[in-house]
Amino acid sequence: MADEKRVYAFGKDEQGADVTEGSASMKFMLGGKGANLAEMAKIGLPVPPGFTITCQTCVEYANAGNVWPEGALDEIDAYRQDLERRIGKKIGDTDDPLLVSVRSGAPFSMPGMMDTVLNLGLNDNSIQGLIKQTQNERFAWDSYRRFIQMFSKVVMDVDGDLFENAITAKRLAAGVKQDNELSSEQLQELVEEFKEIFSEEVSAEKHPELVIDGKVTFPQDPNQQLILAIQAVFGSWNNERAVIYRRQNKISDDLGTAVNVQSMVFGNKGDTSATGVAFTRNPADGTKEFYGDYLVNAQGEDVVAGIRNTQPIAQLKETKGLEQAGRDLDEVFGILEQHYRDMCDIEFTIEQGRLWMLQTRVGKRTAAAALKIAIDMVSEGLISKEEAVLRVNPAQLDQLLHPQFDAQAQYDVIAKGLNASPGAAVGSIVFSAKDAVEKEQAGEKVILVRWETNPDDLAGMIAAEGILTSHGGKTSHAAVIARGMGAPCVCGVEALKIDAANKVVTVAGSDLVLHEGDLISINGTTGDVVLGAVDLVNPELSGDLDVILKWSDEVREMGVLANADNPEDAKIAREFGAGGIGLCRTEHMFLGDRKNIIQSFILADSQDVKDKALSDLLEAQTGDFVGIFDSMDGLPVVVRLLDPPLHEFLNDPRELDKEIIRLELEGASEELLKEKRSLLAHIDEMMEANPMLGLRGVRLSILNPELPRMQVRAIASAACDLKLQGKDPKPEIMIPLVSVKAELALLREVCEEVIQEVFEEKGVELEIPIGTMIELPRAALSAGELAEVADFYSFGTNDLTQTTFGFSRDDVESKFIPNYLANKILTVNPFETIDERVVELVSIASERGRATNPDIVLGVCGEHGGDPSSIMSLAKVGLDYVSCSPYRVPLARLAAAQAKLESTTQASDNR
Amino acid sequence: MADEKRVYAFGKDEQGADVTEGSASMKFMLGGKGANLAEMAKIGLPVPPGFTITCQTCVEYANAGNVWPEGALDEIDAYRQDLERRIGKKIGDTDDPLLVSVRSGAPFSMPGMMDTVLNLGLNDNSIQGLIKQTQNERFAWDSYRRFIQMFSKVVMDVDGDLFENAITAKRLAAGVKQDNELSSEQLQELVEEFKEIFSEEVSAEKHPELVIDGKVTFPQDPNQQLILAIQAVFGSWNNERAVIYRRQNKISDDLGTAVNVQSMVFGNKGDTSATGVAFTRNPADGTKEFYGDYLVNAQGEDVVAGIRNTQPIAQLKETKGLEQAGRDLDEVFGILEQHYRDMCDIEFTIEQGRLWMLQTRVGKRTAAAALKIAIDMVSEGLISKEEAVLRVNPAQLDQLLHPQFDAQAQYDVIAKGLNASPGAAVGSIVFSAKDAVEKEQAGEKVILVRWETNPDDLAGMIAAEGILTSHGGKTSHAAVIARGMGAPCVCGVEALKIDAANKVVTVAGSDLVLHEGDLISINGTTGDVVLGAVDLVNPELSGDLDVILKWSDEVREMGVLANADNPEDAKIAREFGAGGIGLCRTEHMFLGDRKNIIQSFILADSQDVKDKALSDLLEAQTGDFVGIFDSMDGLPVVVRLLDPPLHEFLNDPRELDKEIIRLELEGASEELLKEKRSLLAHIDEMMEANPMLGLRGVRLSILNPELPRMQVRAIASAACDLKLQGKDPKPEIMIPLVSVKAELALLREVCEEVIQEVFEEKGVELEIPIGTMIELPRAALSAGELAEVADFYSFGTNDLTQTTFGFSRDDVESKFIPNYLANKILTVNPFETIDERVVELVSIASERGRATNPDIVLGVCGEHGGDPSSIMSLAKVGLDYVSCSPYRVPLARLAAAQAKLESTTQASDNR
Repeated sequence: MADEKRVYAFGKDEQGADVTEGSASMKFMLGGKGANLAEMAKIGLPVPPGFTITCQTCVEYANAGNVWPEGALDEIDAYRQDLERRIGKKIGDTDDPLLVSVRSGAPFSMPGMMDTVLNLGLNDNSIQGLIKQTQNERFAWDSYRRFIQMFSKVVMDVDGDLFENAITAKRLAAGVKQDNELSSEQLQELVEEFKEIFSEEVSAEKHPELVIDGKVTFPQDPNQQLILAIQAVFGSWNNERAVIYRRQNKISDDLGTAVNVQSMVFGNKGDTSATGVAFTRNPADGTKEFYGDYLVNAQGEDVVAGIRNTQPIAQLKETKGLEQAGRDLDEVFGILEQHYRDMCDIEFTIEQGRLWMLQTRVGKRTAAAALKIAIDMVSEGLISKEEAVLRVNPAQLDQLLHPQFDAQAQYDVIAKGLNASPGAAVGSIVFSAKDAVEKEQAGEKVILVRWETNPDDLAGMIAAEGILTSHGGKTSHAAVIARGMGAPCVCGVEALKIDAANKVVTVAGSDLVLHEGDLISINGTTGDVVLGAVDLVNPELSGDLDVILKWSDEVREMGVLANADNPEDAKIAREFGAGGIGLCRTEHMFLGDRKNIIQSFILADSQDVKDKALSDLLEAQTGDFVGIFDSMDGLPVVVRLLDPPLHEFLNDPRELDKEIIRLELEGASEELLKEKRSLLAHIDEMMEANPMLGLRGVRLSILNPELPRMQVRAIASAACDLKLQGKDPKPEIMIPLVSVKAELALLREVCEEVIQEVFEEKGVELEIPIGTMIELPRAALSAGELAEVADFYSFGTNDLTQTTFGFSRDDVESKFIPNYLANKILTVNPFETIDERVVELVSIASERGRATNPDIVLGVCGEHGGDPSSIMSLAKVGLDYVSCSPYRVPLARLAAAQAKLESTTQASDNR
Repeated sequence: MADEKRVYAFGKDEQGADVTEGSASMKFMLGGKGANLAEMAKIGLPVPPGFTITCQTCVEYANAGNVWPEGALDEIDAYRQDLERRIGKKIGDTDDPLLVSVRSGAPFSMPGMMDTVLNLGLNDNSIQGLIKQTQNERFAWDSYRRFIQMFSKVVMDVDGDLFENAITAKRLAAGVKQDNELSSEQLQELVEEFKEIFSEEVSAEKHPELVIDGKVTFPQDPNQQLILAIQAVFGSWNNERAVIYRRQNKISDDLGTAVNVQSMVFGNKGDTSATGVAFTRNPADGTKEFYGDYLVNAQGEDVVAGIRNTQPIAQLKETKGLEQAGRDLDEVFGILEQHYRDMCDIEFTIEQGRLWMLQTRVGKRTAAAALKIAIDMVSEGLISKEEAVLRVNPAQLDQLLHPQFDAQAQYDVIAKGLNASPGAAVGSIVFSAKDAVEKEQAGEKVILVRWETNPDDLAGMIAAEGILTSHGGKTSHAAVIARGMGAPCVCGVEALKIDAANKVVTVAGSDLVLHEGDLISINGTTGDVVLGAVDLVNPELSGDLDVILKWSDEVREMGVLANADNPEDAKIAREFGAGGIGLCRTEHMFLGDRKNIIQSFILADSQDVKDKALSDLLEAQTGDFVGIFDSMDGLPVVVRLLDPPLHEFLNDPRELDKEIIRLELEGASEELLKEKRSLLAHIDEMMEANPMLGLRGVRLSILNPELPRMQVRAIASAACDLKLQGKDPKPEIMIPLVSVKAELALLREVCEEVIQEVFEEKGVELEIPIGTMIELPRAALSAGELAEVADFYSFGTNDLTQTTFGFSRDDVESKFIPNYLANKILTVNPFETIDERVVELVSIASERGRATNPDIVLGVCGEHGGDPSSIMSLAKVGLDYVSCSPYRVPLARLAAAQAKLESTTQASDNR
């Protein structure tokens, strides 16, 4: 591909004519920075001339093992010469040298990569030219020492402290406090010292090209400087921090980075020079005001370094010598917003009163700002409602729906775990659900700290402010339940060794020992665990969110339902805009007081005991359903029949084991022992090697038909009673874990029979659709047949992911998914973002199901229903709705709207 | 479909011209019996005329809720009249009545359905005609009483004992010993008594059409008799026994049964009449000789009832008055074998010296006979080698490869379980692997009786003659290992309550208590458990099997490899004709003495301990592989890297739990307790909720790269050493449980690196292909990418079935698959016969894999590799080989050949 264009010019030529070759749309070739420099130049903004080397050149260079593609160096050299012509200066010139900056710029903003080298082109000769031109010896030597320092650090990876130490020593020797008090001579001395540091620190083996007379020497050839700097940028694409950042942000490794070579302008040429960064609107709250800082007589790095106090941007116009530049900047702000139709962030430099634009991009903002800016821009006529909807990142919305650590708070993180459920909480440590409930009732705020949680802990989890576990992944019991409740949760904190029996936690790698009652704070958004109380902020839900969500609702085609198991959650879901309940798990209704009843059903040794348990359950469940259907009056409620294996409701056989041994050794009565042993034998008989793949779901209903009969009776009775009261209940019955059609057909028959009985008893009828979950590969492949006996499918993508991958999420999420992500074996956690192969199964099932029954309703009720990028994939398959936890409903409404918009309009590259 | 032909005539018309409308190829319309009656009539054999009502009529009748299709009764009536014309007699006639038999005949032979009614057409009038025609009053009354008895029992479901009791009473009253000593008058009295029984026993509600003057009356209208009998045959299609039989034999419920109405001939008309059944060759050993029995002066049912001793068929020609019929029969045998080109079984009747053929079909035979007959018929030029290969049922071959209960032995079955591994064994009960080993070393034959087995029991399983478990299904650990070893195993015997601690077994539903040392026998072919020793027979492996298998090898395209983990199994596999080892599981090599080593690796608290364990394992594994590669010299050996979760090698935490409690209560030292507790904590940390879907297979290798490095080093070293000795080892490395390409790519790199190291150390090189198992749906769907880094795929259809269905086989096979089969939710156990959706995944994976790499080798190494009907499905996908347990290799060779033949020639309906 020797004829591929690798370099693109931007800015004006010697006649002042724009010769820019790129544009904002070329982000994937020129990187974000390069593309926007080109765009600004094209629309007439003052951009120092330069050129951009493409991302593709980086990729080729890296893939070839750091070897330049044929012709690339020649092309760069030609553009360098062209730049010299356009500026009328030569790099390295002894009279009037051209200096350039070299900056990386990937298609997506990427901290962690090599960033910037300024003042490139200076050497022992051209320094004289710079002095000549600027008549400012101090400025020139300061520029040279900055260049050596930056080049050494950034390009050659020399330890930056060595230079700082040398400056400090020089300051002390000179008896001055600030760097800018050093004299021209002292700076010149520093240049020599810096060159020495360079010679000592740079490896001759790695850089034989720099060895002169047996010694590594700071490169004096400006072209060599330039190529070394470009190579360093290319190399930084694959440094560790950059790789980690890309993985975290799901950016492809194959994009590469561009390199921008730009003629230098100087903000440090005296009091009519300055440099600054700014936003066209306030990025924190979205207010329409210029926002930013500048520093007089400084180079860009000084602003960031925070050595001197910056001035707010509003003062620029009032600063002597900078008035015109300030007015020019105001105008630039306007031009940029009109042109980009978005809030922009910029970097600028004022050189002797003249404004130069060094960078612009669409500015990052908080969720609140994103909402306000989008809505304001619609009012201003800048963008459409649809564009406004696309401007808000759904994942960010979580920020607005949960308490957070105060951004100003200072605290030490003692351990880190998985950010399993967003939001932050403060409370005192408790080690059991029972303690949590007791202390909460006594008015104390508690954090439940457990090895991992199980359904028994539910009451304690509800009582606690937040949940912290040392085991389990993001879809562990603790995580799933916490997200469902909207409670903060940090899980899988491996550094914590929890000794619940003695109510002690030790923290690996420290002497810290925590006890019951100790105050801790957890941040479920970041996974941080903090000793002591951190101030929390409860963000106010502004009306802006509501506006954007209403606009989203106008746009989206996919319904958004919620997963909710009780009237309280149903109410929250409804407030958050859920269009019904897509998953009402009935097993949660069997906990608490009712656990005794279900236990007595399971362990019953006579039909009488069984019947009593069933009638108690029927009464309780009917009440549950009345509450839920009432909360969701007029909206569908999809009730899933009992799913988990029955042994989950029984005692842990290991505890019973131990109890029996104790009783034996303590000489308990033979009668008591016999009873306990028989209980243990019963439980052991029910235990399963792999309960996830055992006797649960529809299998359970087929083997214990009394249970679905009871549940369906409760559902139908509750609905009939409400209807008789003039309400509009819309129950649907969902049969889980089906793998063959006959299972569904059989259960459907049972359901229909019971429903008919109830209708006759109650003297009222209503529509009760019956459907199934598609959560096994066989069900997905058999969807054509299943549709003969199903009114709807709900894809249970959690279980479908488990069986498609052969991943037990409880086991793999903490045990090897972190390792797999770190080693790039997986690019995303498939339990967070739906995997392409799982989507393939969903897609096959949708096609086959619709081929049989074009009216079949298709939805998703796994965790993925609340994940924006999964929603995007699922929308492409054409599902009718997603169902997610109540707290994710707003996010899903927005994501569903964006999915619709993305599918109809090509996404802008600039977003 | 009023114009569908529902009735087909067979036999001659009044002029002696054949008017047969059907043929042998119409089995699915006329049933097996009807089709063959038609065929015999067509080729000129003496068949009493009659007609056949089609199977489709039965299906329509049943589907409509026992309502006759329009026009069907008219059509039957027309054929009845036609038959009367052809015979020249009328049914029910007072002078010369036509009597008919009514027999069912489904497309496949089906015991359990209503079978036969003879002498239909007799009533109080036509009995006079029969007396007139036969001049044999006794015969006539005997015929009438037989008819009433049979009609009542078979058509009306009256208890047969009532009639037998009446006969016995009559005999006692008459003072005679045999039924045939009863006089004509006594028989006439019996007729009246039988009619009374009929009136009392048949329900007036169910049969209002039979009520005359308020009393149920034996039907006198011959047409009513006929229609009732036909309806009874149709109804019997759906009786319980028939349904169960069809399920067991995988026969569709939609086939229906035909009904044959045929003019009666009488074998009981005196000493020149007879009836018999025969085979054209010996069905037990295949010898070419006429084989069968006859009874003079008897009707068919007498032969079966065994009331009188039958004569061997060879004597027929020497029996006075039957000489000609005997010679005719010889000729018929010849004609049938020439025509059907197979061994036939027949029913015949000789009426007053004249031979009539009542039935023929291809005869059932033992496996040994099947082999001999097939080979003999090739020598005789009757069939081709390919046909011979198709004549042997692969599933039957198992009979020839294992000891069996002596067919003559008498025994009582005390309990029944799953027939998990074929063959029979006798031994004394032991309750632990340790005891098994000790007693076996002391020379005792033992049966290992366990709740279920686990890898710890392996030594005991090897030491035992057979294995009996009360839990677990056909793919439980016990079953899989037993099949692999070729040891008999009965598992999931729920009636046994095993108290291993007290060494006692009780048998539910009996007072039986078994103790250690008690002698029992188990039959793994049937699932029977017997108290005491049953005589065993060790069938000799005749040369016939070898001949058929060699012919099979000439035909088949699919390779047959074996699953074997040690040199002994490898040798057996090779003897049985395996073309290599398709699955060598390395985890079995970590048991026994080596368990300590792997434990010390897992629990190591220092790198030194770890390294020592690894070097010990390396030494041991290298030895293993030298043995196996040597046994399979010149043939491929596919070695699977470590697959099970590491915690399987550790102690059961429940036992440790109890031990700690005991130690605590006994006041053990704090040091000991600490050690035990820390061990428990370590094990608990490793335990998994669903180990099947946890940290195993490739995941384990990625997290513990020392293990695959050690194993690959052992494999490569063993192979190099053998090659240096002039041998021809052909190892292949298989990486299990891959779900994403990066896993395989990473492990492949590790393998290649180690292999290269070994090659360099040893100074020799060889080909070591590296592949993966496809045992997860995601792997199947990703087969296109995986093929970029795999030389071969082996479909692990056990695990693929587990994840496709979401079935943990250890849990579901005993817990609900039996229920699912009983309720027709599943038609086959998907762990025995591969499911169509699993085949779909195999097919998708094969296509995608071959699209990427047309040379990729595809095989199957699950249990299905040894199941004939699965082999057929997998052959259709075009796999290169199957791999199965050594004892199934012969069966697989045959099945693979048949798959090839079936795919090229249309299977004959007559097989």
